[in-house]
Order: sequence, then structure tokens, then C-alpha cells
Amino acid sequence: MTVHNEALRDHACLIVHGPDQPGLVAAVTALVTRNEGNIVSLDQYSDNPAGGEFFQRVVFHRPDLAAATPDIDADLTATLSPYGVSWKLTDQSIPKRMAILASTSDHCLLELLWRHRRGELPVTIPMVISNHTNTAEDVRTFGVPFFHVPSQGPDKSDAEAKILELVTGNVDFVVLARYMQIISEDFLDKVGVPVINIHHSFLPAFIGAAPYRKAKERGVKLIGATSHYVTKELDEGPIIEQDVARVDHSMTAADLQARGAYVEREVLARAVQWHAEDRVIRSGNHTIVFT
Amino acid sequence: MTVHNEALRDHACLIVHGPDQPGLVAAVTALVTRNEGNIVSLDQYSDNPAGGEFFQRVVFHRPDLAAATPDIDADLTATLSPYGVSWKLTDQSIPKRMAILASTSDHCLLELLWRHRRGELPVTIPMVISNHTNTAEDVRTFGVPFFHVPSQGPDKSDAEAKILELVTGNVDFVVLARYMQIISEDFLDKVGVPVINIHHSFLPAFIGAAPYRKAKERGVKLIGATSHYVTKELDEGPIIEQDVARVDHSMTAADLQARGAYVEREVLARAVQWHAEDRVIRSGNHTIVFT
Amino acid sequence: MTVHNEALRDHACLIVHGPDQPGLVAAVTALVTRNEGNIVSLDQYSDNPAGGEFFQRVVFHRPDLAAATPDIDADLTATLSPYGVSWKLTDQSIPKRMAILASTSDHCLLELLWRHRRGELPVTIPMVISNHTNTAEDVRTFGVPFFHVPSQGPDKSDAEAKILELVTGNVDFVVLARYMQIISEDFLDKVGVPVINIHHSFLPAFIGAAPYRKAKERGVKLIGATSHYVTKELDEGPIIEQDVARVDHSMTAADLQARGAYVEREVLARAVQWHAEDRVIRSGNHTIVFT
Amino acid sequence: MTVHNEALRDHACLIVHGPDQPGLVAAVTALVTRNEGNIVSLDQYSDNPAGGEFFQRVVFHRPDLAAATPDIDADLTATLSPYGVSWKLTDQSIPKRMAILASTSDHCLLELLWRHRRGELPVTIPMVISNHTNTAEDVRTFGVPFFHVPSQGPDKSDAEAKILELVTGNVDFVVLARYMQIISEDFLDKVGVPVINIHHSFLPAFIGAAPYRKAKERGVKLIGATSHYVTKELDEGPIIEQDVARVDHSMTAADLQARGAYVEREVLARAVQWHAEDRVIRSGNHTIVFT
Repeated sequence: MTVHNEALRDHACLIVHGPDQPGLVAAVTALVTRNEGNIVSLDQYSDNPAGGEFFQRVVFHRPDLAAATPDIDADLTATLSPYGVSWKLTDQSIPKRMAILASTSDHCLLELLWRHRRGELPVTIPMVISNHTNTAEDVRTFGVPFFHVPSQGPDKSDAEAKILELVTGNVDFVVLARYMQIISEDFLDKVGVPVINIHHSFLPAFIGAAPYRKAKERGVKLIGATSHYVTKELDEGPIIEQDVARVDHSMTAADLQARGAYVEREVLARAVQWHAEDRVIRSGNHTIVFT
Repeated sequence: MTVHNEALRDHACLIVHGPDQPGLVAAVTALVTRNEGNIVSLDQYSDNPAGGEFFQRVVFHRPDLAAATPDIDADLTATLSPYGVSWKLTDQSIPKRMAILASTSDHCLLELLWRHRRGELPVTIPMVISNHTNTAEDVRTFGVPFFHVPSQGPDKSDAEAKILELVTGNVDFVVLARYMQIISEDFLDKVGVPVINIHHSFLPAFIGAAPYRKAKERGVKLIGATSHYVTKELDEGPIIEQDVARVDHSMTAADLQARGAYVEREVLARAVQWHAEDRVIRSGNHTIVFT
Repeated sequence: MTVHNEALRDHACLIVHGPDQPGLVAAVTALVTRNEGNIVSLDQYSDNPAGGEFFQRVVFHRPDLAAATPDIDADLTATLSPYGVSWKLTDQSIPKRMAILASTSDHCLLELLWRHRRGELPVTIPMVISNHTNTAEDVRTFGVPFFHVPSQGPDKSDAEAKILELVTGNVDFVVLARYMQIISEDFLDKVGVPVINIHHSFLPAFIGAAPYRKAKERGVKLIGATSHYVTKELDEGPIIEQDVARVDHSMTAADLQARGAYVEREVLARAVQWHAEDRVIRSGNHTIVFT
Repeated sequence: MTVHNEALRDHACLIVHGPDQPGLVAAVTALVTRNEGNIVSLDQYSDNPAGGEFFQRVVFHRPDLAAATPDIDADLTATLSPYGVSWKLTDQSIPKRMAILASTSDHCLLELLWRHRRGELPVTIPMVISNHTNTAEDVRTFGVPFFHVPSQGPDKSDAEAKILELVTGNVDFVVLARYMQIISEDFLDKVGVPVINIHHSFLPAFIGAAPYRKAKERGVKLIGATSHYVTKELDEGPIIEQDVARVDHSMTAADLQARGAYVEREVLARAVQWHAEDRVIRSGNHTIVFT
């Protein structure tokens, strides 16, 4: 059964994305109004008002939203098709289903579980999957199902197949919460939902493995973390959020890693929240984030 | 003669403020569209979608804006009067005229002059007025007229009268860039334009004089600065922007003051820019800032 | 039985505090050397090199520290008494015992328990005491004893007596992790160990109750948190650490509170760590923090 | 004639650097004491207390420092030679002589000149050298000599020869304040003093030209600046300081550049101040910065 968020009952989020044209904002707002919606928030961005790409996010309240949705959908098709733009209408009261993949590190995993318990992440968490068992007890404390899918050996296809079996049809997006296995192109092709990763460096600095060791070697004065959508190009996907922390010469690579963990959990939690709230629009290798 | 900013030619900014009602956003965007405007950016906020206060800022491009303005004004009156909201339409290509009042400190004054020369502040600066002469040479380097209005003695009414004479009718707002004289209620009544101040503390901490000395005495670990509109209640006006800097036990009150100067100039410059771009809406003792 | 930290085995921390005099640093470092210690880190501060107050923290490694301590103590007395300064020598491998007092909010409490489990806080936690029971299950997951001491009614003396009974002789310091009861002067007199609090505002702004509501009313653009030692003057004790987060007009008082929780847990955790590592020296209503 | 800073009269800074050994700190502090110095500040760092590299910075006050310096030098040789460490003793009241090289951008150049006039940089500025003339007027306002050394054409050897002629023997370090010419290895060999650069990205991200354009293409959420010592490997020298600023999808590459200018001037000014105060010790491709 779907969990509904009472405060967001009858709130819809409409994302519009396509070529910018005069009158587009007015067309959307008029559509909302004639469908008895009251606009709660509206964000828009055009990368070039003279013929660029247009992005819009409108949240509106409409009593009996579920009953009205077929009519609104039909009106959207009639109204927006001539503009050649795409759109997506979601019911904000239906939380997205999020799978978390983790390894031994617990800081990102527990942060997500804890923020969810506080009611700060509009998601449900049908499963945590880990290739280790050390976090199983903690995860169960939060009342979330824990699945152990080991990934020994060079061939990860068995593990990936099991993960696909667990997530397919059951989740709306997947979060890699310091999951220390490379995701194959094949997995990305099959999973069919967005995959969000947290990389433990300030991308594009220190791409690849062991970024804290590389940061120590280079002698940087700030370390960072980056949350991004996973694409077939490793560490090259669209960036959702980044942040940094100050470090100094006295810190070892292990100190950087310990300090960086606090940046990682914060950056990932923000990215997950924005994604869950439909605040992130992907465009090529970029993101538009309406915070 | 008015300086015009070429990049903002034919761009209008419309501010709407009043009781929130269904259909208001659609009414405004439809109005812009039927007056041949193309919306470049749109920000809105309602402090309570069910009957709260509504704030909106729309920037739109409209060829031959000046010629069309009377028609747009008439349409605004016809369209928005029924909603009981207030509005203000400004031509973004006409920079606001800003007077700067200063004393001996040069850091806020020079920052504003320098950012203006870089083209980052959409204002003209018809005058700098100071109760000291030490910055006169620097100000003239920037090609800005400098007026010395001394303010000796306990009675400031003569000085204020001279300042009023200089600014009345000549400026759209006044900036106190570390002007170390208390502004009288009488001056505020007469000046008739917004007055922006930079206070050298993180308000409401350390209200009044000598905030860096008080900060040292209290042993705080961060110092701050606050830019606000000046009202008759000293240091109590609506806050536009604030920021802080980290300090430690080893710093003297003079060190705090030197460090704080960098926060002050940054906070004041941001507040001035946002005000000049019509991004700040006052509401009671608060500001809505659409950045 | 005392838990020992292997990495800090045979490490001593020496704090020296008193009137600054020529030769004091040399006297201390010579003492360490002749007692076969190797200085690992040394921090010092004088609020006025010409006759001010002097603060020093020296960490040194000395094989068989426990056996050598009586001799070092005797040498300290002989060497430093003539200078009229006070000193304190601690074995860094013996973690301080910390009691946590909490109420319904879990964010500061869980952050301390979790950082402790990660090995980032050099303390033992013999007890968590709460006037509510909602966090009992979580606390037990961390293997820490939980005591429920209710505090109904206006007279808190019974509750305080029970807390004193639990902590007396069993802990080296007490942390108020969003404990929502006023601590009496009598309790402070009797407890005999430092008490660290986290206040949910950027002190001295918004002293007293409901700081997030007051922050909303004043329209500030940053909110903050302050960790300080508790003294008989409410919210006036020496500040150990502070930090802030950016907020805007669209956030309600409840939003500020939710956002502020992340600042609170971070600020408190840093203050606790620095206190546990003997990095904080109190001097009047100030702290010297050697980070 | 050398400018002396009154507040730092008779203050010496001693830097010690070499293999860590027991007793080294005590040997240095005893030396200062027997030479009648009073230690004002002391910082030290060892990258491994068991046989690593040791770095120390001691500032002490010694009446009639100039007269005592030969004796102190002799004592340093006698005392520290057996330890196999290197040392450097400088008179803090003698400011370092700094040449600034600039191109058309004025933000870093003016920041250094202005901070120097405020008394915040302990340097003298015998010359500004630019390959353009647009900043000449501003530089002269600060009473600093301006030299125009054009650098047309692919062969920069003439321009570099002229710069070497100007700086050789006249300055203690060179600052590239957004100087947009590649410095040749030959120049570095001949100049014989440290050269500090400001790179307009968060190194090692976006090495090379046009970092703001690359940052826009990658869609980062923070931009940065890095000040480093120049070495023969372009953009690979030891980092002194870094900082970042938050950006978003709506900003163009030009916006990033305008925003980044404020980070650049702040980062470069801090690096220059620390270098001028002998707070930065180079070790391989790293820096130890005692702030």
C-alpha cells in the first residue's frame, strides 16, 4: 500500500521542458487555473530567452486531485503539444520508492534512514541492499528490509542480476550510498530508473579510486563530495550537488576521509531530497535544480 | 541624462504584492503575454497559499517597451485592481540613482564604487557625501562627485538639511556605507526614498555602538555583518542580507574589526545589488528577497 | 574498567595557564625533554606578551608514561611553582567519561552516540539520562545504558537529585544534548564537573526560549547554534563553538528548526570532541580553543 | 630605504625544518631564552613523530634584535647543526619587497594594493608590471611605480628579459595577479625568488586555460580559486590556499567568471599575507601553513 503524505494531499507537481517560446508560461498557468488549481510555487529557467531551452516546475493545489488528473492530463496534451515541449505531472502526496545500495561504510546509509524517519525525505524505502552484512542490524532498527547480496570475485553479473530482481518494478530510483562496486553498463540499461551516486571528491578533481589519498598527495586545502546521476561514463554523470570542507597540512589521508564523510552524507541527503521532490531536471550532462 | 544599460533594453520588472488568491499568477502571466511580453524570469512566494500574502517578481522582454508602457499600465489597473493587490512596473534599462553617505572608513565605499565601475551594479552614482574629506581623492578617481558635509557638534540638523538638499529629487535610494552618524527620524520622514545601512554585527546580536568590542567581550567564535533598511527604530529595520566570518580567541577587537570589514563590504554590495535590481520586497519588518 | 585508546598509549597532555613570563615556554619544553618525552604538538597563546595571561597545551609521547608520572608531577611542581602558573597533566589514552542528558529530540544525542561508535570521540559514555523514553530503544542499540528520570511539575529538585546520584563520581563531564529543562544553580554547585550545553541560536542573539520563532519574527538571513559551558547565568557561559546556516524568507519557524538541527548536532559534536581532547581552556567568560 | 613596521620592531621569526628528533623543540626554545628572547608565538608540525619531517615557526621579541642577531646566528649554528636541520631567521619589522605582475584584469591587483594601503600586508611594493596599460592610472593613485612591458608575439623572451631586469635584486617575491602570460622555465631559473600565482579554478580541477568555461560545461555547483607557488609544471606547484563559491545552473560562463573574481582576490590576498609573514613552508609539492 502506498504511504501518503497528508500535508501534500492534493498537491501536484508539473515539470515542463522544451524549446522556449513566448506565451509558454502564460499557457501553463492558465491551464492550472482553468483546472481549478492554485499555484503554490513556480520556478522557471531558460538558458536563452531568445530560442533557448525552457524548464519549469509548478506545484499547485487542486482539491480531489486524483479524480481530476485524467482531465488535467488531457488538457496538458491539448495545450502543450503545439509547443513541442515535454511534461510530467506527479502527485506530490505519493512518495517515491527508493532503494539504497551500500557496502561497509554506514555514514551515508544511516543519514538517509534517519532523515527519512524524521519525515524530511518524501520517500519510502522498500529495501537496503548491501554486499556486506555489518549494517544489517542498524538497518533493521529503522524497520527497513535488509538484503545481503555478496559480490565476490571479478564477475559481478550474478550480484547485479540479484539486485535487478529485487529492485525491478519495486522502486522509482536507486541510491548508491557509498556502494563500492562499479555498476556495469548492462545494469544501467536494465534498471530503468535513475541511479544517484555520492562520489567522495569534488568532481572533476580526483576522478576514480582513492580520492582522499590523491587529495593528500596533491596537498589541497579543501576536500569535497559530489552527488551525481550515474551514467555509463564513470564519474561523468550530471552533477546534482557538491560541497567542501576545509582541511590542512596536519591531516592524514585517513583524517581527510573521516572529515569527508560528513560532507558526503550532507551532499547525498540534499541530492536525494531534491530528486524526490522533483526539483532536479536533467538536460544533457547538466542538471537544473530548483531549490 | 539617464544612462541606459543596453543588455536590459526593453526589459520590464513587475512586482505584485497583496492577498493571495487563486488565479493571480495566471492573470499576471496572461497579461504579460497579451501585451507581447516574453517572460524571462518569474519568482513568487506566498506566506500561506490559503489566504496569505502573495509576492511576485516577473521580468519580461517587450520590444519598444517605452511606447507600450501606457497600455501595459492601463491593463495592469484593469486586471489587478479587482484582486486588491498593489504593483510596480519598472524599466530595467534605467538604472536607479544611488547616493552614498560615508565617513572615514573606505572599505564599503570603495567596494561599491569599484563594483559599479566593473558594471556589476545597475545604478548611477550622482554623489558621495561624507562628513570627512579623507576619501575625496579616491572618489574622484572613479569620476564620482564628492561632497563634504561636516557634522560637528551635537546638533546634526544643519548637516542633515544640507544632505537633504543634495539628495532630494536627485536619487532613488541612499546607502549608508559605514556613515557614523545617527540618522534622525526627521531626516527619514523627509528623504522620501529607501535608506540602506550596513551594521557591523550579526543583528540582533550586539545592537548599538562598538559591536566588535562587545563581540570580543562575549567571546563569540563568528562575527557578522547585516545590511538592512533604516527605520526609526535603530538597528531594527528589515534585514536584507547577512553573513559571518570565523574568528578565534587570539584575535583582538581591532583584529575582529579588520576581519569584519571584508564581511561588511560583501554583505552591503549584495544588498545594494538586490535592491537595485528590484529583488527585495519589504513586508512589515521583513524582506522577501528573490535572488 | 577503563577503556584505553591504543593509538594514544603513553601520550600525555599538559595544560599550563597563568601569568606570561619570559622563559616559560623554554622551561616547559626542557622539562618534557629531561623527562624523556617527545613533543608531538604544542600550542600556546598569550593575550599580551608583555605581562598578559599565558595558555599552553603540550602533547608529548613518553614510553611507560604511567610509571613516570609521579616523577613528572614532582618536576612540574618544582619547575612551575616559581612561575605562579597552574597546570594539569592528563593521560591521553584514558578517555573522559561523558554523561548525556536528553529530552525528546534525538538529533544531538544520536550524533554523539554515532560519532563515538565510529571512534571519533575519545570518551566513554556510561549513561544517557532522559526525561522522556522515546529515545531509549535507539540508545540501547548503541550498547549504552539508558536511564529515564522524569521531570514533571514545577519542582525539579527530585529529578535533579536523581541525576546527581547517577552522575556523581561516575563521569568527568555532562553534555546537555537538547535537554529541555533549566539546570538549577544548586545542581551546578553539586555536580562538580563541567556541563556543556547546545543552544539553538547564534548567541547572544535570541537568548532564552523559542529562538527559531524569534529568528523568524526578526527576519534573519542566517540561523545558528552555540555550544557553551553552563554557568549560573542562563545562556551566558563561555562559548566553545558556533556555526550558522543560510535561510530565507520562504522558511517557516518549523523549517528553521529542522534546518537548525543539523547545525546544532555539528556544533555540539565539535565542542564535545575539543573538550574531551583537552583543547579548551576556560578563562573568565572566554575559552581558548587550540584546534 | 627600508620601511620598518613599528609594531613588529625587535620581533624575529625563526623557521626550523628537518628530520624530527626528541629534544628539538626544547633545544630551540632554550636557545631563544638564553638569547633573551620572549616567545610570542610558536607553531610546530611533524608529519610523523617517530622519525618524520619536522616544521617549526617561532616568533620572539628580543630588545635590540639587530645588534643581537650575529650572536643568535652563531648560537643557531652551534645548536642546530648537530640535528641536521635547516633554519632561517628573519627580522619581522623588515617588510618583504613584492613585485606584482598583472594584465588587464584589475580585481586581484587592486585588492593587493588596497590591503597594503590599509596596513594589512607586511610588504613594500616597489613595482607593478603589466603587459597592458589600462590599470596604470589606478596603480599610480596608490603611489606605486607602474611599468608597462608589452608581450606581443609568440616570443616572450624579450618581455621576460625586461621583467627580470626590473625585479632582479629589487624584490623578495613576485606575485602573478591574473598575469595572463605563461612564465617560461628559463624565467623561473633566473628570477631566484618565489613566484606566487592565482589560478582561477579549484585545482586540480580544470587545469589549463578557460577554467570557467570548462566549469560551465561540466555543470559544477561550486567554483573555486587556488593560489600556489609557480613551478616548471604548469598549475602543479605547491598549493598555498583555496576557496570556493556556490553557483547554479542559471549562471553563464561569464557569470561564473564575475563571481569567481571575488574568490580569486580573497584567496590570493590570504596567500600573499601568509607568505609575507613567513607562515608558509614548502616541502616537496606541499605547503605547511601556520595560520
